[in-house]
Amino acid sequence: MVPRYSRPAMTAIWSPTNRYRIWFEIEALACEAMAEYGDVRKEAAAIIRERGDAAMAAFSDADLARIDEIEAETRHDVIAFLTWLAEKIGPESRFVHLGMTSSDVLDTCLSVQLVQASDLLLQDLDAVLKSLRDQAFKHKDTVMIGRSHGIHAEPTSFGLKIAGHYAEFKRNRERLLAARREIAVCAISGAVGTYAHVDPRVESYVADKLGLYAEDVSTQVIPRDRHAAFFCALAVIASGIERLATEVRHLQRSEVREAEEFFHPGQKGSSAMPHKRNPVLSENLTGLARLIRSHVIPALENVALWHERDISHSSVERNIGPDATIGLDFALMRLAGMMEKLVVYPDRMVANLESLGGVVHSGEVLLALARAGISREDAYRIVQRNAMATWTKLGEPDGRTFRENLEQDPEVVGKIDAKILDDAMDSARHLSAVNAVYDKVFGRHDA
Amino acid sequence: MVPRYSRPAMTAIWSPTNRYRIWFEIEALACEAMAEYGDVRKEAAAIIRERGDAAMAAFSDADLARIDEIEAETRHDVIAFLTWLAEKIGPESRFVHLGMTSSDVLDTCLSVQLVQASDLLLQDLDAVLKSLRDQAFKHKDTVMIGRSHGIHAEPTSFGLKIAGHYAEFKRNRERLLAARREIAVCAISGAVGTYAHVDPRVESYVADKLGLYAEDVSTQVIPRDRHAAFFCALAVIASGIERLATEVRHLQRSEVREAEEFFHPGQKGSSAMPHKRNPVLSENLTGLARLIRSHVIPALENVALWHERDISHSSVERNIGPDATIGLDFALMRLAGMMEKLVVYPDRMVANLESLGGVVHSGEVLLALARAGISREDAYRIVQRNAMATWTKLGEPDGRTFRENLEQDPEVVGKIDAKILDDAMDSARHLSAVNAVYDKVFGRHDA
Amino acid sequence: MVPRYSRPAMTAIWSPTNRYRIWFEIEALACEAMAEYGDVRKEAAAIIRERGDAAMAAFSDADLARIDEIEAETRHDVIAFLTWLAEKIGPESRFVHLGMTSSDVLDTCLSVQLVQASDLLLQDLDAVLKSLRDQAFKHKDTVMIGRSHGIHAEPTSFGLKIAGHYAEFKRNRERLLAARREIAVCAISGAVGTYAHVDPRVESYVADKLGLYAEDVSTQVIPRDRHAAFFCALAVIASGIERLATEVRHLQRSEVREAEEFFHPGQKGSSAMPHKRNPVLSENLTGLARLIRSHVIPALENVALWHERDISHSSVERNIGPDATIGLDFALMRLAGMMEKLVVYPDRMVANLESLGGVVHSGEVLLALARAGISREDAYRIVQRNAMATWTKLGEPDGRTFRENLEQDPEVVGKIDAKILDDAMDSARHLSAVNAVYDKVFGRHDA
Amino acid sequence: MVPRYSRPAMTAIWSPTNRYRIWFEIEALACEAMAEYGDVRKEAAAIIRERGDAAMAAFSDADLARIDEIEAETRHDVIAFLTWLAEKIGPESRFVHLGMTSSDVLDTCLSVQLVQASDLLLQDLDAVLKSLRDQAFKHKDTVMIGRSHGIHAEPTSFGLKIAGHYAEFKRNRERLLAARREIAVCAISGAVGTYAHVDPRVESYVADKLGLYAEDVSTQVIPRDRHAAFFCALAVIASGIERLATEVRHLQRSEVREAEEFFHPGQKGSSAMPHKRNPVLSENLTGLARLIRSHVIPALENVALWHERDISHSSVERNIGPDATIGLDFALMRLAGMMEKLVVYPDRMVANLESLGGVVHSGEVLLALARAGISREDAYRIVQRNAMATWTKLGEPDGRTFRENLEQDPEVVGKIDAKILDDAMDSARHLSAVNAVYDKVFGRHDA
Repeated sequence: MVPRYSRPAMTAIWSPTNRYRIWFEIEALACEAMAEYGDVRKEAAAIIRERGDAAMAAFSDADLARIDEIEAETRHDVIAFLTWLAEKIGPESRFVHLGMTSSDVLDTCLSVQLVQASDLLLQDLDAVLKSLRDQAFKHKDTVMIGRSHGIHAEPTSFGLKIAGHYAEFKRNRERLLAARREIAVCAISGAVGTYAHVDPRVESYVADKLGLYAEDVSTQVIPRDRHAAFFCALAVIASGIERLATEVRHLQRSEVREAEEFFHPGQKGSSAMPHKRNPVLSENLTGLARLIRSHVIPALENVALWHERDISHSSVERNIGPDATIGLDFALMRLAGMMEKLVVYPDRMVANLESLGGVVHSGEVLLALARAGISREDAYRIVQRNAMATWTKLGEPDGRTFRENLEQDPEVVGKIDAKILDDAMDSARHLSAVNAVYDKVFGRHDA
Repeated sequence: MVPRYSRPAMTAIWSPTNRYRIWFEIEALACEAMAEYGDVRKEAAAIIRERGDAAMAAFSDADLARIDEIEAETRHDVIAFLTWLAEKIGPESRFVHLGMTSSDVLDTCLSVQLVQASDLLLQDLDAVLKSLRDQAFKHKDTVMIGRSHGIHAEPTSFGLKIAGHYAEFKRNRERLLAARREIAVCAISGAVGTYAHVDPRVESYVADKLGLYAEDVSTQVIPRDRHAAFFCALAVIASGIERLATEVRHLQRSEVREAEEFFHPGQKGSSAMPHKRNPVLSENLTGLARLIRSHVIPALENVALWHERDISHSSVERNIGPDATIGLDFALMRLAGMMEKLVVYPDRMVANLESLGGVVHSGEVLLALARAGISREDAYRIVQRNAMATWTKLGEPDGRTFRENLEQDPEVVGKIDAKILDDAMDSARHLSAVNAVYDKVFGRHDA
Repeated sequence: MVPRYSRPAMTAIWSPTNRYRIWFEIEALACEAMAEYGDVRKEAAAIIRERGDAAMAAFSDADLARIDEIEAETRHDVIAFLTWLAEKIGPESRFVHLGMTSSDVLDTCLSVQLVQASDLLLQDLDAVLKSLRDQAFKHKDTVMIGRSHGIHAEPTSFGLKIAGHYAEFKRNRERLLAARREIAVCAISGAVGTYAHVDPRVESYVADKLGLYAEDVSTQVIPRDRHAAFFCALAVIASGIERLATEVRHLQRSEVREAEEFFHPGQKGSSAMPHKRNPVLSENLTGLARLIRSHVIPALENVALWHERDISHSSVERNIGPDATIGLDFALMRLAGMMEKLVVYPDRMVANLESLGGVVHSGEVLLALARAGISREDAYRIVQRNAMATWTKLGEPDGRTFRENLEQDPEVVGKIDAKILDDAMDSARHLSAVNAVYDKVFGRHDA
Repeated sequence: MVPRYSRPAMTAIWSPTNRYRIWFEIEALACEAMAEYGDVRKEAAAIIRERGDAAMAAFSDADLARIDEIEAETRHDVIAFLTWLAEKIGPESRFVHLGMTSSDVLDTCLSVQLVQASDLLLQDLDAVLKSLRDQAFKHKDTVMIGRSHGIHAEPTSFGLKIAGHYAEFKRNRERLLAARREIAVCAISGAVGTYAHVDPRVESYVADKLGLYAEDVSTQVIPRDRHAAFFCALAVIASGIERLATEVRHLQRSEVREAEEFFHPGQKGSSAMPHKRNPVLSENLTGLARLIRSHVIPALENVALWHERDISHSSVERNIGPDATIGLDFALMRLAGMMEKLVVYPDRMVANLESLGGVVHSGEVLLALARAGISREDAYRIVQRNAMATWTKLGEPDGRTFRENLEQDPEVVGKIDAKILDDAMDSARHLSAVNAVYDKVFGRHDA
């Protein structure tokens, strides 16, 4: 992920330094466990822990360079790290990594990183949820037109719209928790997962200390269906971001103007057109969602590794691991900020709602005619006729409102009276269930 | 999905007849609920139920044709069905669909269909799990070489390999259950989800009767993040199929020949080469996995519908709904049958294991040298040297086994004795933890 | 592809009957060639041709059933066909398929089908191009607002907008021609592509008769990079459909109403809201585009077949071959019809263009101030200030047009005069290059 | 793309410095053109060129920081650059960017970068082609078994196999040239592509100087179908890399051992198993191919921008532009090096070819029986029977070779004689057309 769309905390998780810290922690914990259940002497484990902790605490660019140097020779990253570590620890280093295979370290490290990333993303989701909750309660009764197919349908409230997104992000939070559980696994099982050279209790010990679960069956690697499921969850979340971003883009259109992204003082919308205030944040989020979604396919392709494992997944994960989590972290926090500062124009909402001469109440009139005993088919025909007559003459001198047209329709006259029409034309009826929905979604309907 | 890869039970779920049955059921249940909570008279609801049940029981191709005919005129599928239903029910039909919108019917119907499909897929997964469990226990102690990068690594057992796939399919079963929960939702909330013309209790009633949950916030439609998550789960399962299929393809290679798909009497492998017995089932499964995975992208793109909804998701779902579930149903049952009948060649497994002169025991020798006090780096160098010397002269007159080479290496002689080498060269040590793994995976290790 | 989105001509290409016709043609042509260059006696080739032609001419459901019956036994589709053919031809059938392998028939047949499909798609593209050309010329001078980010930018013409889509579809036509060339290849090279049992001239002969090119190197199969490139081209075309469909969806929004899909008499937009006229065709096209795009991934995954070939691509192609071509054929013709009948509202275009008080001319005012010697930064600041003052008071009693605001701005007064403002506010200037663009795109600018 | 998979030359193309160089060049060229066709005074254009060139020549990190600083305020990257440029150029800077819009600069710059990237990739492809050509000629007559479905089929030569990949990469080179042509376009057409403030001849001038074509219709942006087609071409190439990488992975399997990636002295294959020599390069290439393929979907989703443009494509392209080209550059050069140094084992090829007792000649025996007048069905049955008898007793004491079995089969005896069997069992016949294929692919068959 390019720096432009990266935040420091998430980026740090994917830094070499953090990776080496985790590698050391896994090795040190394994030594401690082997001091209990294996061939490592207790004093050796203590020295490894002590000197290793010191080395990691003092870890600097020089260490990075030294590891790179060794890797250039051995062409193997874990061996390079272990060789560097041996230089720091001395002879006791021969107890490090005993009976383990590189993937024990690599895969468990990736789990730790993805758990760290998940925990950040959960915080991000909470920020998004808060911003949505605030807007939802602020605009619980802000009437606006609901739109299907981009066409005015029936009234709703802006708060209810936002509540729907809130409910989706609550689901997304559950999905992320499930995804975190998927990849919170530790494997220390040796070359092909048989524990031939390492006691299974070592794995349990390390897992426990790292806050992970021990993998049921690892085959040198942690099976990649877990990671595929993880990236799928991120992709679903990204798609939810896109849905909300698309909503904002629509609301900010020049013809709609019901809401606007906050426009910073000093901000310039266009180099050529000084009047422009563009929904660039939500458009940016739309693009980021495309990126994060795209990681699903290679993640799924990674599942079918050959036999006990091959290394084809590695180059994929070195990229999509950081890209997806950094990108989603950035996108969620951008979304939270955007929604928090969103400028809403209730007057424009009312103006748009009323702009079609009242045809948006056709559904309720249809029901009123049905209640008056007219067959569904006839009622539909009558209402459609009057709605289209209104619509096609909108703004024209001889145009009439939907109500005016209805009141002159011989098939309507006498069937339903003015009071029924009053009621049918009242937007308030569409907000009658909002409190009930809020109770379901937020557990309450008063702010 | 082409008929070639379709099974009748799953195909029937997606038939027009099943769809119309579900549509009617939703409408009838809604009428019953509205008789309690809305404007429908109890007698009307009873007549609708009675005459509708009769019409659905007698549903024939003529009815399908009639509905198509009406749709050709109205260009609206739900209205076409309701018009047909009105012809069957008579005047009381004006109470059908009262205050509801088409999506209330369409989306709830899709939920019912996906739940039906999930229940079939769960059965399929159980069949796969059974076939894997059987093979795993049959071959718990069948020694074979484990392979990483396609290169011999260390011994394992065929049963343990299969146990790993079993564990993955157990996870897949959990994922499918979660996916089923995602889409087991009902929405009857009207034009833009405000319940303006329908009591929320109607939704609860219908949901309850259909075994669904009521949607928290529907916006005419059930939000598509649910469906995206569903198709993601199918894609992860499909990738697990591919992993196992790829394993079988490898094992059946001419040079490996450790296992083979059952070859039917009368079967012909190739029109040109009568000797061929090809792993066509597992190759076919590989292709089907690609197809099912590909549905993830449009399912994710479907999430960001415009405002309260647009209809762009519909053409996608009309295809991937059946394609993904029919394809996965077929693939899972093909996989179950293939694994159940898989022909395993333990002798070939032993022969292959022994074919590299014992270098596959290099890891244990490395540890033995380390235990004898040699530094990790020196031990690695010594073992690698002897392994390569063995490898490069495999099958040549002056070739020696790994053990023979070790026994002549001055850096080894005196450090480790014959007994240690015996032990290091014994494949049995690699199966020592198999029972413990089986206990984790199957809850037991005896068949 | 479900029947709803299928047209008969394209569907017929993928029927079993068409496939068997092509298979026979390939076999018969190969026999003719082998009569010249191989082991087949001329009289045998003649009998095969004669009796085979007769059998194909009389081909019926009974023949399909018979072939299916044989395949159920042999589990090999080409052998099943050849066995059926032998029943029709008699003893001379032993010369059929001599030295060939199934893929020679299957892959060459797929090429013929994809060429047939391409030819239909080229016709479809021509229909789309015609519909666009007609609208472009009809509305060459129909002024409307151009929009970037959904925000009014500067005036353009509806014709120019359509000309851009026309240019894209011209490129798409080129891409389809290139894609057709990619897959217009014939392979008759035997079991692993060595021509061990068949003279290369047989391949050339068959290729020539079928209007194909002979493959450079086939390895039993025609390499799948060709097919991947083909499906990529369809995906790019589908994305172009989506771009135009998205445009129409936007123009039909209730607040915009600049264009509308034709609404059929008798059509019903919504079961609940009789006033609805929804852009359902363009939304449908959006969904179909998602489907057709999704085929790219499995097509690309098909490329890396194992060694000389495996059969994993087959299940993919049995689905995406028909799905992508049938879907694209349907989508293109739906698009052509939709664009041909599109209802355009020039009055609404003017009304929208004028709705923002003239700020859409900010770019030209910026240039005028620059020409008057004001620095870019100052000019930008001045123009932005006046545009924002106009925008934020749109429709309010104390609101002023952009021009009125400018005329009262001390930094503007005296710098540019009324005539310059007249000119800057004139939408006509934005159409000055339309003819030049039309000349480039259509080769002319008069209709 | 992570640094691990990046080469400096390609990375430099995507550096901010290169981008700003190109931006300035576009602006300077536009000024020159406007001095001819527009409002810019010739002396101003000369000053802009002179001072700008000087500023770009001296461009340093301080300049980058200054531009970032301005962007933090204006939130607009092009305006930030222009402001910085104005600081360098002085008052004449007011003629810079006159009548242009940011996208004129951004999109034309992206075209230049993609052209630069394409030119590097073409060189890479040439390196791949050279490595393949060399191996193909070196091993033109190196007999090996051809495999379909991973099962031995018929003999071929290693050179012919490589020639097939060479032919595919020739096609890939053509595709890249076509893709380069797709994106080698320049747009300088103003806010919504109407040339309202800029003479179309400016665009032509700049295009010409930059080696680009002028876009037919740009709508502020260059239409994204071009870029989608570009990324599709890269994905097809990546898939070709995967096909070859998969071949090498198979050939290096322990049981096959027909070829091996070069193993560097000092290289360590596994931290736990010193004997391992793994095909890590080709596995790495497999993963990189997945990544590069994944960019296709967001590139296709970028096509349907809203109206004249939105900015959603930008975040996508900021990532996949570098990622796809850097990744492919790295992968191609890794592939070229790997193929150049590939270690081939002709002896193992012969050993494997002979390992199945001669059944790989079943196809030719089938033909021989057919020539002897036996019907296709009977001949198939006879040959299959003898092949299976051979296969199932491979390596067993009572096992017989395919030939031995045939010679004892009463249905064969008397039909074909020893000489015919000699001929059928001769691998040489399978290489008879190799020269002809080489002539087609390489234009010659002698090295």
